[in-house]
Formats: sequence, structure tokens, C-alpha cells
Amino acid sequence: MREADRPSSLTIEDVARLADVSVSSARNYFSRPQALSAPTHARIKAAVQQTGYLPRGSLAGLSRRQLGRIGFEVPRGEDPAGNPVFNQQLLSLLWSARAAGFRLQPFVTDKEPGSRAPHYQQLWEQREVGGFIVTDLAYDDERVAYLQDTQVPFVLFGRLHEETGYCWVDTDNVAGSVMAVEHLVEQGHQRIAYLGWPASDAVADRRLEGYRLGLATAGNLPACIQVQTYGQPALEQAHDLLRRSPRPTAVIASCDEFAYDTIRAAAAVGLAVGSGPGRIAVVGCDDSAMAARTVPTLTSLRQPIQRLADRAIDLLTAKISNPRFEAHVLERPQLIVRESSSAA
Amino acid sequence: MREADRPSSLTIEDVARLADVSVSSARNYFSRPQALSAPTHARIKAAVQQTGYLPRGSLAGLSRRQLGRIGFEVPRGEDPAGNPVFNQQLLSLLWSARAAGFRLQPFVTDKEPGSRAPHYQQLWEQREVGGFIVTDLAYDDERVAYLQDTQVPFVLFGRLHEETGYCWVDTDNVAGSVMAVEHLVEQGHQRIAYLGWPASDAVADRRLEGYRLGLATAGNLPACIQVQTYGQPALEQAHDLLRRSPRPTAVIASCDEFAYDTIRAAAAVGLAVGSGPGRIAVVGCDDSAMAARTVPTLTSLRQPIQRLADRAIDLLTAKISNPRFEAHVLERPQLIVRESSSAA
Repeated sequence: MREADRPSSLTIEDVARLADVSVSSARNYFSRPQALSAPTHARIKAAVQQTGYLPRGSLAGLSRRQLGRIGFEVPRGEDPAGNPVFNQQLLSLLWSARAAGFRLQPFVTDKEPGSRAPHYQQLWEQREVGGFIVTDLAYDDERVAYLQDTQVPFVLFGRLHEETGYCWVDTDNVAGSVMAVEHLVEQGHQRIAYLGWPASDAVADRRLEGYRLGLATAGNLPACIQVQTYGQPALEQAHDLLRRSPRPTAVIASCDEFAYDTIRAAAAVGLAVGSGPGRIAVVGCDDSAMAARTVPTLTSLRQPIQRLADRAIDLLTAKISNPRFEAHVLERPQLIVRESSSAA
Repeated sequence: MREADRPSSLTIEDVARLADVSVSSARNYFSRPQALSAPTHARIKAAVQQTGYLPRGSLAGLSRRQLGRIGFEVPRGEDPAGNPVFNQQLLSLLWSARAAGFRLQPFVTDKEPGSRAPHYQQLWEQREVGGFIVTDLAYDDERVAYLQDTQVPFVLFGRLHEETGYCWVDTDNVAGSVMAVEHLVEQGHQRIAYLGWPASDAVADRRLEGYRLGLATAGNLPACIQVQTYGQPALEQAHDLLRRSPRPTAVIASCDEFAYDTIRAAAAVGLAVGSGPGRIAVVGCDDSAMAARTVPTLTSLRQPIQRLADRAIDLLTAKISNPRFEAHVLERPQLIVRESSSAA
């Protein structure tokens, strides 16, 4: 963690001087950023970040009620109620916020594609919330760009390409995949495949990165990667994996949905699930609600969501009181070993 | 639906006169109800409900901001993130509230047993919300008693023993179980068992009631009921069911968790799941996230949560503007037939 002093009596003139621009340009940065050229905008942004300057009417003018509310957008996936991680994030944040004396304000934006930043802007400008916790991130997340540019306090539940310049909490997805590989190697597996999402966000990339790292560490085992393409069901991808020659003896899936798809593909070709000769071991991720009840029970990585939620609220509290505060929290998941990767 | 006129210029004296009590007793009803004898409390309550009287400082004094917020307690189950229905309710209500121009304010109370009514009282008295939608109901729900006594606008997502005197929306759980029985009878089943929760709330009772009704309608088929006792895992209950003689050929479970436990018990004794000779058919309830992906895919009743959420917001809106408004909405679930109850 690193912290910086609170800004004392900074003025817009200080920012303009540091950025070597006119005062009216510096004002435009907050009120009409589209009026600025890209280089000018970048210079002012750097000066604002360096000084921690906040325009009047932002934090200084927040009411206690506004400061006490934290905005949290519930992801707009096709069926978010089915996503075990988003549900746990939402519920954990409700508990964490309550314990810290805050009120979480969950909200939804649009089901259609398009920028969600205006929804954040509206909540902020109408003084509904004193900051945001943001999840379901894309690398070029326009919501994060908005929050950074306007100096709204926020903490990411997840990360972008750049890992500094903002506060975040995240599951160590690299470590999770390494744990999955280690577990399978201990069970005697040498041909371990990976079934994942396309590389488009840090969760997908880090889970795959951990898989590669795990293989390398285990003695440069061969990689066997099947990455989902949009429009093709994961079930078909699982079938493709099982048709590879030589056939993998274990599959690490990037989520429990894909793990169940793999089990389904195995059943279709009469392949038993588990560790041992003639079987295929399956490891999922996210430890979804039925993982301990299905046949077979599913080995899966459980994310440390409640701990991360607690820390996210901590960081946001610090960020609200000190605009230059920055900290990062990485927590390891836990591998819950069940029948799908165990010997019969 | 029935509606009543808005109260015009009712006073506490009118209420006292109608209830045949002193004005100070009528005032105590709102401020110190514990000071009243039970019969006096009941008489005043009836008069308040009959007249739609609201004390000063309640609805009339609500701010636009307060009126625009709807409180919704997220149930405090052991792992609420794993409950498919509560998740869907929460997410559906977020969308419904947004479409109606409201903001949903989810909140949590305590993980420990004890009255949750004080949390509602605090939110109401601190003017955080203009009304509540309440779910996860027990028959003697002290939260509902508080909301009724203090004339706070609320709508139940579910029902109590008494079905009138308040607004509610609910899944037709009787019809759902009847549909499950009809489906199994169509598949040729005559020995259809039921695995459910103990009778302690309207959801448990109505699902069981529908099962009995379905059997009666199908020609008085024999009942075979296994009701869970606290402390005994449903998996053991499922094993008990499969040891019955003659063995049931189908099981209707009160939730998907118990359906998976039944499938697990069947696997343990080498019994295939599905419809047909030597197999056991399984029907779950709530259509949880993995139901379409497990082996076998699970036949389950899908609740009409989004429609009910929309209607709950409608009713609460009406209730806020008219304290004597009362309406009830019952929607049928949909049976999603999958492999667990189909012929091989």
C-alpha cells in the first residue's frame, strides 16, 4: 500500500500552472473535457492526479448521506442470476458495507450494449453515492476511464491491463490455475487440457496464464488449450478437446459451467469422470451452488469473495477521505477437491 | 384487485371513536403499542385498517427521495448466494424498480436469529425508504406484523397463512406441483414420491398441497412423502425414499438441491435417472443455474420471478399513494422438462 497526504488548499490555478495550461483549460477538464485536445487533456489529467486536486462540488461538497452510499453496478450478463461470482460479490458487499457503516446501492444500467459511463455520471452528479465499486471489467472499460478522469472515488473488483493508478482487489487467478495444475499432477496427470473463454479480460487471461505457468513448473508438460469462440457452445469445445489425440486425461475449465459441459461431453462418449486409468478428471472454477451435490461432485476453485469485499470497502473508505490513496489487494482462491478429480 | 378511497381528513380521534378507546390509547397504538392490552390493540388495529388512517409524520411527510426508494431485505440464509430464487428476486427487482422510476435499496440485517423488525423500523423512521418488498417469509413473520401495525407500505413476495389484509405477489406453487405430477403421470408413473422441507412456511405447504392434489386428480395415486427433519441431510432422506417398498419410480423435490440429492442417492444404489423401466425420474424446483448443464439435465419448475417483481413494484406504487389499496397476484411457474424425467 502507498498513501499520500491529503491535498490542503490546492486551487485550479495550481493545477493549471503544473500542467502549463490556461486556467480556463484546467476548468474545462472538469466541465467540458471534449473541448480539450488530447495532449492538453493528458497533461491536465497528470497534474490532477499528481496533486490530488478536487474541484469544488465534488468530495468537499458531499453530504454525509451521499458519502455513506456506495454504488455497485450489477453486471448485465444474459442471466446474471446464474453467475455464482456476481451473486457472491453483491451479497458479500452488502454485508461488508453494513459492517463498515456504509450502505451499498446496487444498480443496473442497460441490457443492451453501449456505454455505461453515463449511468455512473448521473449517480455521481445527482449525489446519490460517494463512490463506486466496479466489477465485470473489460480491458478498455469506459466506466473506469470516466471515474478516473473525473476523480470519482472507486475501487475495482478485478483489474485492467495497467495495474496501477487505481485501487483494486482481486482473486489471484494465476495462483488458482497453478493450484489446479499441481493438484492434477499429484494425481498423476501429464496431459492436462484447458477450456476457457476468449482472451478479452484479465480474468480469462490470468486463469490461462496460471495454467501455462503450472505446466511449466511441473516440468514443461504439454499445453492443450481450447478457447471458446463466441457463438460456439462450450459443450462443442469440450467435445473437441476429448477428440484430441492423445486425449487429455484432465481438463481445467475457466468456470463451473464449462466444467459441467466437459462432464457432459465425457458422458456422451462413455468416459467416466475422475482420476485414474480410462477416466477424465475435471476441475472447475467458482465453486457454484450445486458443486457439492451433483454426480460427480465438482472439484472447483472457491474465490475469497467475502474477504475481498471487506477489503474493497476498506480501500474505498480510504480513497474517499484521501483522493491520492492507492492500494491493491490480491487474495488466493481455495481449491475444493471433490469427486470429479479424485480416484474412484 | 380491490381499491378503496384515500383517507381524506381522518384524525386520531376518528380512529379512537371507531375502536371505542381513548384517544391516548389510539396514540399509543403508533408510539407505544406494548402499553396496550392485546384486545385493545386488536380493536385499534381494525379501526386503523378500516379507515386507512395514517399518523402524521408517516406517508404525508415523506420526501420525494424517500418515496423513490424501496427497501428489500436480502435473506440471511447460510449461503444466500446459493439460493437461485433469492438471487433472481433481487436482480429482477433491481430491473423492475428501475423501469418504474424507483431505486431498490437492498439491505441485510443479522446472520443470527432474532427479530428483524427493528431493522425495518430504523430504515422507515430514518426515512431511508418509502416502502418495502418482503420475502423469505415465515407464517408468524414479525417483520410483517411490524409493517402492518405501523401502516408502512409493503408488498410480500410470497404469502402468510392469512391471504388477505395486505398486498402480495406469489408463484402458484400448488399449480407447479400439480404440473409436475401430471407430467410424471403422462410418462407412465404411478408411484410418485415427494421430498420436501418441513411444513413451516407457505412455500413448503403449497408445494406439498399441490403434490397431494395432483395425485388425487390423477385417480387417487398413493402418496409417498418424505419430509426433511432439521439436522438430517436431504441426501439421507433421499436414500430413505429409495429404500421404500415398493420403491417409487419418480420423485418430486421441493427444490433443485433435493433433486440433486435424489440423483446422488440413485447413483449410489446403481439406479439410472429418467423415465422407463428400472429407472427413477426426478423433478426439481427453481430451475437453478446449472440445471441445463448437469448429467442428467434436470427437469425443474421455473418461477415467473421477473413478472412477479414487476407486479410487486406496481402494487407497492399503488399502496404508497393509497394506504387502503390491496391486491394479490398469482402467477404460474413453467415446467422445464429435461433428461431427469424423460425416457432414455
